[in-house]
Amino acid sequence: MLSGLGILAFAISGGLAAREHDMDAIGIVALAVITATGGGITRDLLIGAQPVAALVDLWMIALAVLSGLIVLLFVGAQERLRRPLLIFDAIGLGLFVVDGTMKGLSFGLHPGAAVVVGVITGVGGGALRDVLSGEVPIIFRRRSQLYVVPAVAGATMVVLLQLLGWATPLSLMGTAVVILAVRIAAIRFDWHLPGARFGSPG
Amino acid sequence: MLSGLGILAFAISGGLAAREHDMDAIGIVALAVITATGGGITRDLLIGAQPVAALVDLWMIALAVLSGLIVLLFVGAQERLRRPLLIFDAIGLGLFVVDGTMKGLSFGLHPGAAVVVGVITGVGGGALRDVLSGEVPIIFRRRSQLYVVPAVAGATMVVLLQLLGWATPLSLMGTAVVILAVRIAAIRFDWHLPGARFGSPG
Amino acid sequence: MLSGLGILAFAISGGLAAREHDMDAIGIVALAVITATGGGITRDLLIGAQPVAALVDLWMIALAVLSGLIVLLFVGAQERLRRPLLIFDAIGLGLFVVDGTMKGLSFGLHPGAAVVVGVITGVGGGALRDVLSGEVPIIFRRRSQLYVVPAVAGATMVVLLQLLGWATPLSLMGTAVVILAVRIAAIRFDWHLPGARFGSPG
Repeated sequence: MLSGLGILAFAISGGLAAREHDMDAIGIVALAVITATGGGITRDLLIGAQPVAALVDLWMIALAVLSGLIVLLFVGAQERLRRPLLIFDAIGLGLFVVDGTMKGLSFGLHPGAAVVVGVITGVGGGALRDVLSGEVPIIFRRRSQLYVVPAVAGATMVVLLQLLGWATPLSLMGTAVVILAVRIAAIRFDWHLPGARFGSPG
Repeated sequence: MLSGLGILAFAISGGLAAREHDMDAIGIVALAVITATGGGITRDLLIGAQPVAALVDLWMIALAVLSGLIVLLFVGAQERLRRPLLIFDAIGLGLFVVDGTMKGLSFGLHPGAAVVVGVITGVGGGALRDVLSGEVPIIFRRRSQLYVVPAVAGATMVVLLQLLGWATPLSLMGTAVVILAVRIAAIRFDWHLPGARFGSPG
Repeated sequence: MLSGLGILAFAISGGLAAREHDMDAIGIVALAVITATGGGITRDLLIGAQPVAALVDLWMIALAVLSGLIVLLFVGAQERLRRPLLIFDAIGLGLFVVDGTMKGLSFGLHPGAAVVVGVITGVGGGALRDVLSGEVPIIFRRRSQLYVVPAVAGATMVVLLQLLGWATPLSLMGTAVVILAVRIAAIRFDWHLPGARFGSPG
């Protein structure tokens, strides 16, 4: 459920990124698939869960292809796509951080390692999307607008919920919603961490 | 045989890309090796065939190094290299799609997953080559000229041949030739899929 | 010991690269972690040592986070950082080539494969650092200034030391020092291999 919605959200963000870069139909579908499956594949490689989930649960790739085709059919190449792309990316981030952390824990990883794996699952697909379309990943831009902060906090929350025995579908979905709400608020109000030079363009 | 020729073709395309970007001797050899082995390594990681084939069958890396040295010695940095690069890339694409799909099937993957693995084997090395030389991979350009379409069709053909018991060296080599012929025709006649804005530069 | 110092050196080089590109606090820490662990993670994936070491020995990520924070606190964004970045990169290169080759051998790889794995361990983190900050990796620039040459020579030396029974902490540390000394001399005196056009900018 979590991962299905996450696949959908990331696939759409990938399709929108492809549209923004004026790719053709194959580029749109391929970037949708890679963005949607990239975080989970990275997670599965790091922990050694092979064949990776995307090759076993083929509905993931099918859903991502479908999402890409929907973008191809219904989103014009001329529209302003940056804002919706970031919203769908935030939704995918929240869902995949929770999903990835749970998979890390269920694989028997140390809680600290499960947090790392959860964060990587959440940010991996988007980072691949950005690199493959010739951009610097969001995390590594001058103002990443709290991209990783809510991811780390959310993954830690999931670990705590699990340790306390409070990890229910509702509490996990709630955690995903908190992550995405913080990220979207950070985009909306341009919250950012110190570090970047003041006054430098975003 | 298939994979040996594929290594050769992709290594040359990597060497030519390095020449085009004016890299030094090490860059030429390294990009030849990564282009030649990157698709197969990605495949082996996704399905969990480790140590990856390139670390077991060391002739692959040796052949790629040799191909890189040949490019270094015989291809001047000033020549027009884009067209031959794309031809060798197409040859590698055809051979590796067939080889990767067969390896996926022999690993017991679902036929649909074998198609995915075959396509990734075919396009992975070239995508790494492009990213590492600072370019956007061919698939994600405005006009990818059917890069992935013949790959998906060819991988599907391999799965059908295998299911029907018709997978012979000849029929598999034939499939590779069809993939590369379609791709080369697409380059030659600038076939492309809808999606990109009309009139935008390639 | 070797890998601890290597983590430290690469983490600082990653932090400096992030500073150079004017990333925020999270970008600095994330790039420090990825640069420090990327080579070892790539090695572990290729040989199939999963969960990867960075998820088991969590002190690696902790040390890299700490190194990133030190860069954040003590290095101003305005300073000239290219030269120190390359020095720390050279230190990490030397240490990780030795460490990676030893791990490859202890994993039972063919000596030739262990050399390949050692070189990948040494150059992998830096290559990720460069790609993620939107640059072409050092190896693939016009003048790579012997980046890979001392790495290959050092990895071969480690294999020989091990085969001859002479691999002691001292001889291994000595090999790491030779690799980094050759690399730093190559930067200092702009040694480079043939291949690149004469007179082209670095």
